[in-house]
Amino acid sequence: MNLDITTLRNQTPGLGTVNHLLASGSALMPQPVVDAITGHIELEARIGGYEAAAVQQQLLDGVYTSVARLLGAAPQEIALMENATAAWCQAFYSLPLNKGDRVLTCQAEYAANYVAYLQRAKRDGIVIEVIPNDETGALDVNALESMLEKPAALVSITWVPTNGGLVNPAAAVGEITRKHNVPYLLDACQAVGQMPVDVRELGCDYLTATGRKFLRGPRGTGFLYIRKELIEKTEPAMIDHFAAPWVAKDRYQLRPDARRFENWENAYALRAGLGAAVDYALDLGLESISDRAWGLANLLRAELLQIKGATLCDAGAQNCAIVSFSIDGLDPQDTVVKLRTKGICIGTSDPASTRLDAEDRGLPTILRAAPHYYNTEEDIGHLVDALKSLPRS
Amino acid sequence: MNLDITTLRNQTPGLGTVNHLLASGSALMPQPVVDAITGHIELEARIGGYEAAAVQQQLLDGVYTSVARLLGAAPQEIALMENATAAWCQAFYSLPLNKGDRVLTCQAEYAANYVAYLQRAKRDGIVIEVIPNDETGALDVNALESMLEKPAALVSITWVPTNGGLVNPAAAVGEITRKHNVPYLLDACQAVGQMPVDVRELGCDYLTATGRKFLRGPRGTGFLYIRKELIEKTEPAMIDHFAAPWVAKDRYQLRPDARRFENWENAYALRAGLGAAVDYALDLGLESISDRAWGLANLLRAELLQIKGATLCDAGAQNCAIVSFSIDGLDPQDTVVKLRTKGICIGTSDPASTRLDAEDRGLPTILRAAPHYYNTEEDIGHLVDALKSLPRS
Repeated sequence: MNLDITTLRNQTPGLGTVNHLLASGSALMPQPVVDAITGHIELEARIGGYEAAAVQQQLLDGVYTSVARLLGAAPQEIALMENATAAWCQAFYSLPLNKGDRVLTCQAEYAANYVAYLQRAKRDGIVIEVIPNDETGALDVNALESMLEKPAALVSITWVPTNGGLVNPAAAVGEITRKHNVPYLLDACQAVGQMPVDVRELGCDYLTATGRKFLRGPRGTGFLYIRKELIEKTEPAMIDHFAAPWVAKDRYQLRPDARRFENWENAYALRAGLGAAVDYALDLGLESISDRAWGLANLLRAELLQIKGATLCDAGAQNCAIVSFSIDGLDPQDTVVKLRTKGICIGTSDPASTRLDAEDRGLPTILRAAPHYYNTEEDIGHLVDALKSLPRS
Repeated sequence: MNLDITTLRNQTPGLGTVNHLLASGSALMPQPVVDAITGHIELEARIGGYEAAAVQQQLLDGVYTSVARLLGAAPQEIALMENATAAWCQAFYSLPLNKGDRVLTCQAEYAANYVAYLQRAKRDGIVIEVIPNDETGALDVNALESMLEKPAALVSITWVPTNGGLVNPAAAVGEITRKHNVPYLLDACQAVGQMPVDVRELGCDYLTATGRKFLRGPRGTGFLYIRKELIEKTEPAMIDHFAAPWVAKDRYQLRPDARRFENWENAYALRAGLGAAVDYALDLGLESISDRAWGLANLLRAELLQIKGATLCDAGAQNCAIVSFSIDGLDPQDTVVKLRTKGICIGTSDPASTRLDAEDRGLPTILRAAPHYYNTEEDIGHLVDALKSLPRS
């Protein structure tokens, strides 16, 4: 299906103000998302916070159904969280990992996750092993297969890293982990919203993502998918009386669904916004979204290669809507600031956010742009022109 | 200082719609809080989520200063969280409690906290001991003093319980815990915003609270105070790269301030709303707020006692703005629904939310009303009249 770009752009208030090319950071919200949030806040102000949640209960329950549809999951497999990291931590820290347990991760693993591995290496004695890359720069599935000849407690990887344009072979990893019966935690923070996601095809046991990136939802939203069969076997690392009602003086009883990873109080206005964002993406279709966003990213890559001194830092056989690059003589931070004064939004990626990959590739701080389907060829052209016009040091 | 009630009511859009008497649930937000939230959401929609946070950085940093002022703390002792439970869990689960360690709590302890004790009793072997009440129904400080003749690992109590109108002697507890050098975690969820709070006077080591109750802030906000001297000694139970930057391949470094309990992504719009709510309360003055709110609650108690078959369920020598009661022949849930149709909002309190207290006092589900300073004597009168008019079974 072709997207009606004019209509989509008219529904995106930010496009009147900025040439926003950073969907991997926090994409521009469409008007229905803004309306869902502010509408709920105004309802809370008018009738009270508890009362607003009661009135909107059906809509709020529907957010689970929407997120489940987005992921090819069942609603009871979804927990809504305040962000992707909280969702990821609830899954990771719930796993009973002990001394000597091997946790396999990828070269491009995100900092948030890696420091958690380091904490449990220190606290619980887990052993972190890094799956090497193949010749394209993606996770090497053959290497993983070999590494799983010895028992492992967990495979935990980032699907689409914060930089590098890479799409790791997440479904191929799932095929291997299922064969070896090893739990598989997939960080899909930058994948969800820019491409189709199906947890059954991926074969993952846990998947986490955020609302604010390619989904175009509000900041401060995220979710956790946990495979049905694992829910009742998993006790969250922290609980409250929503996750586990206090059924007798000396006993609690964990909820039977994925919401045992949630707690009682929530930002319902943001949940309403997340639901609107998911529905908006589903209406457009994730195939159409990725076709267009990835096409624009490829156009950007091609145009950047025409700039003298520009280097693409993307890796892997399959590139996504995130474009990582550097330009000789342009300081990345300074470049972002200067582009902002021209109404163009891109970002940087710091070695500390993907330290294994950055150190191995010798990458300093680099530039990061991520067009979304609402961008145009002209947006790309303006960015490239602006980059060309910046004075080099 | 006398509050200008007419002006305050005019700044509260909900008062045109509802007679809201449930500040202990989720109080009505004043217009400046609504504006702070929706203003930030609209800014995010106009220029992007990351870009809005950058533009508003000074205001957002100021929220720490405001919360610190509210609590008599320093800004570096404050972590902003998505709710009070998350804040409490981050404190509680960070404590290295082991087999046989005694955790002392109170009779009126809240369910969210108690199930966490039960989890750590199961997981870590801690021993939960309940401090008995004195003859008024408040925590007995002499009993606590005796219990601390043997070593204890933690004193963890609820200051103002979810029901029972009670104000536990939190500062007297702090005096004893300091003398015995025992860590002291204070759940101030229902206290903050209805009365003055000073962490130095309280002598607590950790204090947690929410934005949505008496503070009149947004749902989905909360905060943790941790005493300066303890921050660097405390490793959170879960971390990400904001709490602990990834400084070398095999090493993270925890932040030096209380924000080591936070993670990277936040709902900045709600934070802005929380800051506005705190500033609003500070401008009015917490003494003036409690004078008026507690006065209205006492008026309600007096009027309820005039209703045939009404029983007050409040305890302790000092009562606050939360009024718990039952009326013969009125089903609590049904009463709340019927009052809603008359535009009056109150709530219920379930035994499962304070099971020790409810079972010991033989309390079923009871009614709960909590006037705030923006309510009037007429609001109280209307509630009482409505209660009188309901048909009894």
